[in-house]
Amino acid sequence: MNIANSVLLTDLYQLTMLQTYHAERMQETAVFELFARRLPPERGFLLAAGLEPALNWLENLHFTAGELDWLAGCGRFSPEFLASLAGFRFTGAVHALPEGTAFFADEPILRITAPLPQAQLVESRLINLIHFQTLVATKAARCVLAAPGKLLVDFGMRRAHGAEAALLAARATYVAGFAGTATVLAGMHFGIPLFGTMAHSLVQAHDREEDAFLHFAAAQPGNVTLLLDTYDTEAAARKLVELAPGFQARGIAVRGVRLDSGDIGEHARRVRRILDDGDLRQVTVFGSGDLDEHRIGELLASGAPFDGFGIGTRLDVSTDAPTLDMVYKLQEYAGKPRRKRSEGKATWPGRKQVYRRIVDGAFADDCLGLEDHPRPGEPLLIPVMENGRRLQPPTPLAAIRDRVRAQLAALPPALRANRTTPPYPVHIAPELRELTDRLDREPH
Amino acid sequence: MNIANSVLLTDLYQLTMLQTYHAERMQETAVFELFARRLPPERGFLLAAGLEPALNWLENLHFTAGELDWLAGCGRFSPEFLASLAGFRFTGAVHALPEGTAFFADEPILRITAPLPQAQLVESRLINLIHFQTLVATKAARCVLAAPGKLLVDFGMRRAHGAEAALLAARATYVAGFAGTATVLAGMHFGIPLFGTMAHSLVQAHDREEDAFLHFAAAQPGNVTLLLDTYDTEAAARKLVELAPGFQARGIAVRGVRLDSGDIGEHARRVRRILDDGDLRQVTVFGSGDLDEHRIGELLASGAPFDGFGIGTRLDVSTDAPTLDMVYKLQEYAGKPRRKRSEGKATWPGRKQVYRRIVDGAFADDCLGLEDHPRPGEPLLIPVMENGRRLQPPTPLAAIRDRVRAQLAALPPALRANRTTPPYPVHIAPELRELTDRLDREPH
Repeated sequence: MNIANSVLLTDLYQLTMLQTYHAERMQETAVFELFARRLPPERGFLLAAGLEPALNWLENLHFTAGELDWLAGCGRFSPEFLASLAGFRFTGAVHALPEGTAFFADEPILRITAPLPQAQLVESRLINLIHFQTLVATKAARCVLAAPGKLLVDFGMRRAHGAEAALLAARATYVAGFAGTATVLAGMHFGIPLFGTMAHSLVQAHDREEDAFLHFAAAQPGNVTLLLDTYDTEAAARKLVELAPGFQARGIAVRGVRLDSGDIGEHARRVRRILDDGDLRQVTVFGSGDLDEHRIGELLASGAPFDGFGIGTRLDVSTDAPTLDMVYKLQEYAGKPRRKRSEGKATWPGRKQVYRRIVDGAFADDCLGLEDHPRPGEPLLIPVMENGRRLQPPTPLAAIRDRVRAQLAALPPALRANRTTPPYPVHIAPELRELTDRLDREPH
Repeated sequence: MNIANSVLLTDLYQLTMLQTYHAERMQETAVFELFARRLPPERGFLLAAGLEPALNWLENLHFTAGELDWLAGCGRFSPEFLASLAGFRFTGAVHALPEGTAFFADEPILRITAPLPQAQLVESRLINLIHFQTLVATKAARCVLAAPGKLLVDFGMRRAHGAEAALLAARATYVAGFAGTATVLAGMHFGIPLFGTMAHSLVQAHDREEDAFLHFAAAQPGNVTLLLDTYDTEAAARKLVELAPGFQARGIAVRGVRLDSGDIGEHARRVRRILDDGDLRQVTVFGSGDLDEHRIGELLASGAPFDGFGIGTRLDVSTDAPTLDMVYKLQEYAGKPRRKRSEGKATWPGRKQVYRRIVDGAFADDCLGLEDHPRPGEPLLIPVMENGRRLQPPTPLAAIRDRVRAQLAALPPALRANRTTPPYPVHIAPELRELTDRLDREPH
């Protein structure tokens, strides 16, 4: 079973609500918007990611015969309703921020306009796909901002939350500006460049560390990064210096070394000196081990001579902020704006647009307004799907990377510095406030 | 592509190390153990989960023709090495803690005994599968301990990290003692009971809240839980009381109400009173919204009259501790114990066993020892796979649930209370210390 494409990867209430809509013939056009209610305290901006996988999912959405049979066996659903699902397809429209766009609290990053049952059913998986990729792309962008010019590689597969998280984290970190990933399947699936070094187990399986270095280097002579910290980091660096002439004679070029334990900043300084003194100036120093944007910032600020970093668990899980308060809310049904008024969770109603003012190439402020009441600035939401079909072919990852680079460069400097600062200004358009007040005066 | 079964869901270095092992004919038996180096400060115990999906993955592990073609196109691997992968299967042995066993830092929960390349290659995905399920089962067990006798349901699919995380979180929370999940695919895939209520959007799509209640109830008359907080929670409860006689006349039994925003403890008290005064004593009160074991503990301690809870994001992501320091380390190769000595990351070498002493039905202490030097207590690791085949059919989820119930009952009381306490005693056997000291005196 390919769980990633199954329409049953959803919450039960979506199906019971669809049965209600079917019974009551509630098939008019609904408008839902996906947005973050607030940013985690540790985040000054978010980076929209995951649109292409979401559009791909929408285009292929259907119930298989096996799924319909299983639903029939549940005893929860009427035969007429289940029969209606056999022909279910997503035929709606999608507006979205292009992948790689920076955004802020309350700003829709995706809008679905479709018959109510379709727009309802897609809620759970759309959030699931876009929440995670946005989370990880944002974390990755912070690492990129902390390490300008350094080679950053996603090492997070093993502690990412499951298979799809590992694969999509590789994609999200790559679009955010990473050089690549260690996750092989992401190379096959998305064409993302692959990077890898060696593990402690290879060293341990040899009786002598020198033999491990020699065998590993001989088996991939063009692509050698040696791991130095299995027993004694500096001793291993000196072994490499001793092995170097022999490597050279055999045409083996050691490209780099990896440091993974202890005070890696201090080790980097000592190892760099040993390598330089041993005439191995071209060998790069690569750090790993519980890294994130803060630790990398500290290491670089202290002058530790790193050329790159492998960032794993804290990246793929976004450990300091592992979730976003991202929701998908009904904003209009049957031509009428709708508002949820739950305490602490009220929404801005209607079809909205984000208008961003850019001054001297930098983001000045945003205005959350209504689509049909333009405000100054660039409207960020654009149509990407109509009648259930993409309007453009999938955006190449390289183009998304270019967009991210430009977006990060245009962020206010405090946000680029990964500092906690007063939030970026997002104004609410007066028309939107008026609409909200009007809806609040109506009875329910 | 079914990403969950792909052998290429691994780190690049596994393949480059395999190429080294192939070139050097290093095919002797390796022993790797999977364990948590330390527990997060927020956890007093962990609950082993994910074994069955891991065994299933091991049994089916192979390279497809398409994967081998793609690897050949990478230019990193020799034709001889790639040819050797065509027949790759996992033919090793697995020892493991039964799913649902409580365990502590440094204790192996899985041991792989196999030719070095096989034992090496499986590292990344084994951690990926077992780390996540153990993480979530542990979080779920804490919720179960905080809410004895309450109906707990996994609501986390939308903000779980991707498709597989959502599906496996439903499984992990169910084995830990949850009543079920909202994730439909987990019902189909694992036979887990499904629960669901309704969403705010259904209420919003109606002009009058009463109509939403009526239509939803009429569409699934045997299975109605109404969401009360879209506009005004107590007003909605009073509407339900007014609607009740009409429901009854039509054969509709409202089973429960859900509260999702504001001070849900206070709302629960008020709503309970409204329902009781309205002769709806049988209607249960269900809470949701940013819940975890701490918030549930507070709500119940305050006397809030909840019958159950839907727990979502903080459960499926284990928000307060979203990762474990779980690793997979070489402990023996070619009959010789091996030790990683990296600073702060040194391992206990050799084939180990966990011996647990149980006194008066409660866990007294554990001893981490060597397999061939038994210590007092029950040995916890048992053989589950030989020659790449399971020794028993998959354990039914009901049996794992029974085991969890017994394990939680046998935990020291402070651990059962979800309090931060001195760690559970895990002693190191003297034979293991001696082996370690001996290895440390050897040169590398």
